[in-house]
Amino acid sequence: MATPQTDAAPNPGLIIDTLLYFQRSAALRAAIELDLFRAVGEGPGDVASLARQCSASERGIRILCDFLTIHGFLTKSDGRYQHTPTSAAFLDPRSPSCLASIARFLGNEAMMEPCRHLAEIVRSGRTSLPGQGSVEPDHPVWVDFAHSMAPMMAPIAAPLGQIVLHGFTGPVRVLDIAAGHGLFGIEIAKQDPQAEIVALDWAAVLEVAKANAQKAGVADRYHTLPGSAFDVDYGGPYDIILLTNFLHHFDIPTCVGLLKKVRAALKPGGRCATLEFVPNEDRVTPPMAASFAMVMLTTTASGDAYTLKDLESMYQQASYGRVTGEPIPHSPHTVVTGFTT
Amino acid sequence: MATPQTDAAPNPGLIIDTLLYFQRSAALRAAIELDLFRAVGEGPGDVASLARQCSASERGIRILCDFLTIHGFLTKSDGRYQHTPTSAAFLDPRSPSCLASIARFLGNEAMMEPCRHLAEIVRSGRTSLPGQGSVEPDHPVWVDFAHSMAPMMAPIAAPLGQIVLHGFTGPVRVLDIAAGHGLFGIEIAKQDPQAEIVALDWAAVLEVAKANAQKAGVADRYHTLPGSAFDVDYGGPYDIILLTNFLHHFDIPTCVGLLKKVRAALKPGGRCATLEFVPNEDRVTPPMAASFAMVMLTTTASGDAYTLKDLESMYQQASYGRVTGEPIPHSPHTVVTGFTT
Repeated sequence: MATPQTDAAPNPGLIIDTLLYFQRSAALRAAIELDLFRAVGEGPGDVASLARQCSASERGIRILCDFLTIHGFLTKSDGRYQHTPTSAAFLDPRSPSCLASIARFLGNEAMMEPCRHLAEIVRSGRTSLPGQGSVEPDHPVWVDFAHSMAPMMAPIAAPLGQIVLHGFTGPVRVLDIAAGHGLFGIEIAKQDPQAEIVALDWAAVLEVAKANAQKAGVADRYHTLPGSAFDVDYGGPYDIILLTNFLHHFDIPTCVGLLKKVRAALKPGGRCATLEFVPNEDRVTPPMAASFAMVMLTTTASGDAYTLKDLESMYQQASYGRVTGEPIPHSPHTVVTGFTT
Repeated sequence: MATPQTDAAPNPGLIIDTLLYFQRSAALRAAIELDLFRAVGEGPGDVASLARQCSASERGIRILCDFLTIHGFLTKSDGRYQHTPTSAAFLDPRSPSCLASIARFLGNEAMMEPCRHLAEIVRSGRTSLPGQGSVEPDHPVWVDFAHSMAPMMAPIAAPLGQIVLHGFTGPVRVLDIAAGHGLFGIEIAKQDPQAEIVALDWAAVLEVAKANAQKAGVADRYHTLPGSAFDVDYGGPYDIILLTNFLHHFDIPTCVGLLKKVRAALKPGGRCATLEFVPNEDRVTPPMAASFAMVMLTTTASGDAYTLKDLESMYQQASYGRVTGEPIPHSPHTVVTGFTT
């Protein structure tokens, strides 16, 4: 497989741009923190008005808005800034599809701080965060994740629910490991009115999931199991166990061990469904799934973005039968399901 | 003037990419620090060899190289990494046009640290660095600048020299304010064998300029004047005064005051030549010159990327006659020259 992106002619601008890309992340984070995209949406959009609305300086607002315009997040005409289609739909808090909260997770110190020591991380081969990095017990980043990533995960929930429930009707028992915001288990409860969900995560994270279950009207079928996926007794047996955005944090032997524990908690004819960023075998396509390995290098001791072959092998080592991989359209995610025999 | 870049359809991927752009800056900085591009150039380019050559872990090297491949800095084929045209020409230290050292300035803590507080900077309207930011007396960032930015400035030196010397022959006296690496004054000394150069900068920076003058064989016509451009006596009078990459650090009244001091040190028929990032009047095009305002917001108390109209007005307020603006081809820079009457 050839490389996905090669520039035809030498381009020094790519080097300068890339070295300064950190400014673009910072500008978008700052604009979200200042509630600038709400102010732009409310108008009239001149520097003096925006500075007043955001309780900020005119110099700062002017330079920030110009920078956001250059990089595709605002338009500028006659000295007034307005939304682009992207900022109107996904950055203005008045939009129902607003994603602005994801800046809290993607711009989290646990994500960014290790990148300041990336050469050292490449030397040592593991995160510069202490211990197991972001998967240390009760790491606070997962409360941020649960609070802030829901808008990004929400569009995935419905197709994931359909894939996972395929062939099941009536009463099913579901364990949602590393439930986070809880949206995936909650979606199953919504699609199957007889489903009972047990959500497992750190206690502080489960508070977020429980609140979301309440909002979704499924709280009476939503139960919680606080603790580590590696240590707690799962109870069971379950028809379905969800392992979403979880295996990538660990090395292959650890994943195999966990999949064995999961299998032991499944009924005959049950299934384990993982949601993963799954790059192609070349590990450099598609860009978003393949780039995810960098998050694992910087924030974990031994995690990775696993290919479908890697995940199939893990399931096989854990004695599952059939394994299927189903990409979720318009997302970088794939549902990889292992079936008990 | 309309905006330079508007996406036609809403694109949530742009938001996710931008929030994670800091990883791309970090990856390129890390690769340069690990001397990875030299190792790739030397071959054979497999993960085990590269890890050995860079004294790094295989996990780290694999994930870093995949990430650099995704983002256009390497190619990957059959598990081996090779240069792209860009990395071969501009990132491999064995290439005469290698720019890798610019990472030391563009990735300097004085550049990056304020971006971690950008919302606060936008509120207050000034850098989060103490005092006057990067232009505090003897700020160490300028020694890094002098050492590391020379490869990026070298291609600009010849056209700048031609613009500045236009109409002059024989003995000229040149003052190079904020000389940095010294390349611009040195170029004038090379183009005009009777030119005498006086370089002004912080004492530690002048050591770099002097070494460059020595290497260029013009040390006998190269003199130094350590101190602040605002405080030292320039001596003179001069035919030419260079003010390269300097005015943008200050507000307009400060620039006008400095241009008056410069004018007083020029002979009749002399000229002051500034080298600046000059955005169009819309301040959002062209992208590199316009984006430069963000560097000034984050690292100075009141600097800016000034338009040609701004710079003409400063020269006029400082009683210069004719003012010309000459963009340097294939660069984001413009030479703006004020002539004494």
